[in-house]
Amino acid sequence: MTGWVEVPDGSPFPVTNLPYGVFSTAEQSRRIGVALGEDVIDLAPLAEADGLDIARELALPTLNPLMAMGRPAWSAVRAWLSDLLATESRRNVVRSHLVAAQDVTLHLPFEVADYVDFYSSQHHAENVGRLFRPDGEPLTPNWKHLPIGYHGRAGTVVVSGADVVRPSGQRKTPAEEAPSFGPSARLDIEAEVGFVVGVPSRHGAPVGVDDFAEHVFGVCLLNDWSARDIQAWEYAPLGPFLGKSFATSVSPWVVPLEALTAARVDGPAQDPPVLPYLRRQEPWGLDLTLEVTWNGTVVSRPPFAGMYWTPDQQLAHLTVNGASLRTGDLFASGTVSGAGKAERGSFLELSWNGSEPLTLGDGSTRTFLEDGDEVAITAWAPGADGTRIGLGSVTGRILPAV
Amino acid sequence: MTGWVEVPDGSPFPVTNLPYGVFSTAEQSRRIGVALGEDVIDLAPLAEADGLDIARELALPTLNPLMAMGRPAWSAVRAWLSDLLATESRRNVVRSHLVAAQDVTLHLPFEVADYVDFYSSQHHAENVGRLFRPDGEPLTPNWKHLPIGYHGRAGTVVVSGADVVRPSGQRKTPAEEAPSFGPSARLDIEAEVGFVVGVPSRHGAPVGVDDFAEHVFGVCLLNDWSARDIQAWEYAPLGPFLGKSFATSVSPWVVPLEALTAARVDGPAQDPPVLPYLRRQEPWGLDLTLEVTWNGTVVSRPPFAGMYWTPDQQLAHLTVNGASLRTGDLFASGTVSGAGKAERGSFLELSWNGSEPLTLGDGSTRTFLEDGDEVAITAWAPGADGTRIGLGSVTGRILPAV
Repeated sequence: MTGWVEVPDGSPFPVTNLPYGVFSTAEQSRRIGVALGEDVIDLAPLAEADGLDIARELALPTLNPLMAMGRPAWSAVRAWLSDLLATESRRNVVRSHLVAAQDVTLHLPFEVADYVDFYSSQHHAENVGRLFRPDGEPLTPNWKHLPIGYHGRAGTVVVSGADVVRPSGQRKTPAEEAPSFGPSARLDIEAEVGFVVGVPSRHGAPVGVDDFAEHVFGVCLLNDWSARDIQAWEYAPLGPFLGKSFATSVSPWVVPLEALTAARVDGPAQDPPVLPYLRRQEPWGLDLTLEVTWNGTVVSRPPFAGMYWTPDQQLAHLTVNGASLRTGDLFASGTVSGAGKAERGSFLELSWNGSEPLTLGDGSTRTFLEDGDEVAITAWAPGADGTRIGLGSVTGRILPAV
Repeated sequence: MTGWVEVPDGSPFPVTNLPYGVFSTAEQSRRIGVALGEDVIDLAPLAEADGLDIARELALPTLNPLMAMGRPAWSAVRAWLSDLLATESRRNVVRSHLVAAQDVTLHLPFEVADYVDFYSSQHHAENVGRLFRPDGEPLTPNWKHLPIGYHGRAGTVVVSGADVVRPSGQRKTPAEEAPSFGPSARLDIEAEVGFVVGVPSRHGAPVGVDDFAEHVFGVCLLNDWSARDIQAWEYAPLGPFLGKSFATSVSPWVVPLEALTAARVDGPAQDPPVLPYLRRQEPWGLDLTLEVTWNGTVVSRPPFAGMYWTPDQQLAHLTVNGASLRTGDLFASGTVSGAGKAERGSFLELSWNGSEPLTLGDGSTRTFLEDGDEVAITAWAPGADGTRIGLGSVTGRILPAV
């Protein structure tokens, strides 16, 4: 480890990570921080002490203005901070701006502009297809030609730790004659990776696959809470709506793309070949291993590296019709599911639509979420020099329906 | 007409309307205005002259802060302005704050938070069902049980008058083996009515049908531009995405609910009966007549009064799962189509999927939009005392694909 900074072994936040978030303390209002080991760096006063203009953006209660500045600014801040942390003589000034992570409250790190959710794991899409359309092909004809996606509700994106109230709504099984109203009985998760847009684009001008790193600021974890019974009844013909819109949780730390350099891998080969606007130019697959914990029991370790559609392709597709990007746009991978049974990113798949209950560490069994249940999704990536980079975690607990 | 104000006969903006917008002039930056006949009232200085605190919100370049204040404040501002316009002795002060409408630029009147599009005209849904699923029932089984909706892209909502670049994307007809990429060849409109949310709601707490008027500030017109070929290929199984997200146009003037009192009508009877959370408490159907003009030729007059799902039901449905509202949320009715052929709100329906071309006033024929085409949607409602209230218009012109 470079420099004088001591970070406990196994921390998701070594000096090679430096993810951004928004924190407050009992004394201090919301401002931008960087996670380092078991501390949070209060960035603005440190930048001010060094006479940096960017101290103004760092003092704000949201990442958006920093994210809007673009890659040269992002790189400069990261280089300045990395250098500072490697410089013994700056130890005291840095120490004076560390806050113990246990003493801070973490907030939604950015204002979400538009939220788009993709559907880019082939294993997930095939599992869902087999469960819901047993007599047809598991994948729809368009699946391998374009990254299927839809818009979700930006206003109900919440930060990790926020409780999730069990949604109520209409449900109807094929056997029932009419729908009934009540709390969802099939409340689920979707373990996903989110990408946060910093630099906007001009309306009418597509963003190419090769411009991914100019627009995307960083990466977070995302839990796309899903009420399967509500979703199944409502979704034809216009897609998911209330089955998803009650809450989407994101991790509090946004990991910069630069911290994930060692995690970059080629996406899987694509056959049939994709149209030219979707042809990958650089490796933007990411070797992340997610871990899903249900009431303390690890139930799945979904691998992100195998996702059929990579985020550079998702961004190119999202904008190819001229749709513009705004600072704060969030797009998510879709459920991350691997080939193995213990690599599935939703309880729908893990319990095979409720037919194969899971047993948790306390001996209890589960198919879908019960009131009081808590889910945590974490993820790790290879970092520079054999270190590991953590994405932190996104957690949420289910409260009873109102 | 009350008071001393002269508004030309046939103006959409009599003193009983008083819709809000955001305007600028060559000399003045964006601020809130109210349309009156052929003028725009520069509201903030007028309020300041009368010593009103709300002058601060009225001087802002967006309606959001005014909309967030809630119905008592909205009513008070409207009452103050109506009174002012009826008072002969205030003539000079009002006149000094009128700007000729022809000299102003109108802007997107509010910052769009989340945008939701419904699908609430039975005639439209049946027409589309017949065209796309000729062998099945025209309506999906859920259609009469809930107002089907989905989230659209808030970041590409533009104000009337903004050009629309023809989107490119993937299209594939059933006869083709693989999709191809190119400009949409089936570019369409959807004539809709939009509802703008002022007062937010708490996450987790549904908004009842009877709270509609406490949350909704006003009404606008909306054109949900749609690329039918892109939409047809992409939409299974998660709904519309790039076929819609390139642009959605709204009219510049938001008509307050209070101006539409005389237009309120009962929605149509609903059979089967709806679940209790959707039961209407008050008449929130609206007797609006839309008019669609294609290159100057009126091609349709869709009646809004017959919409199967009314906006109070849409709002209750949207939030019944606990999804929260934010100031600036926009939800749209879905294509307004009546029973008659000349009452259909999309070219898909008017040309019966391209099989029955329309003839325009210049003798040319059309099925879908050509480059350079211009579409205007206007609407009228009955006002107080036999007057008519206009919603103004939403227009847009098609530019060639990039």
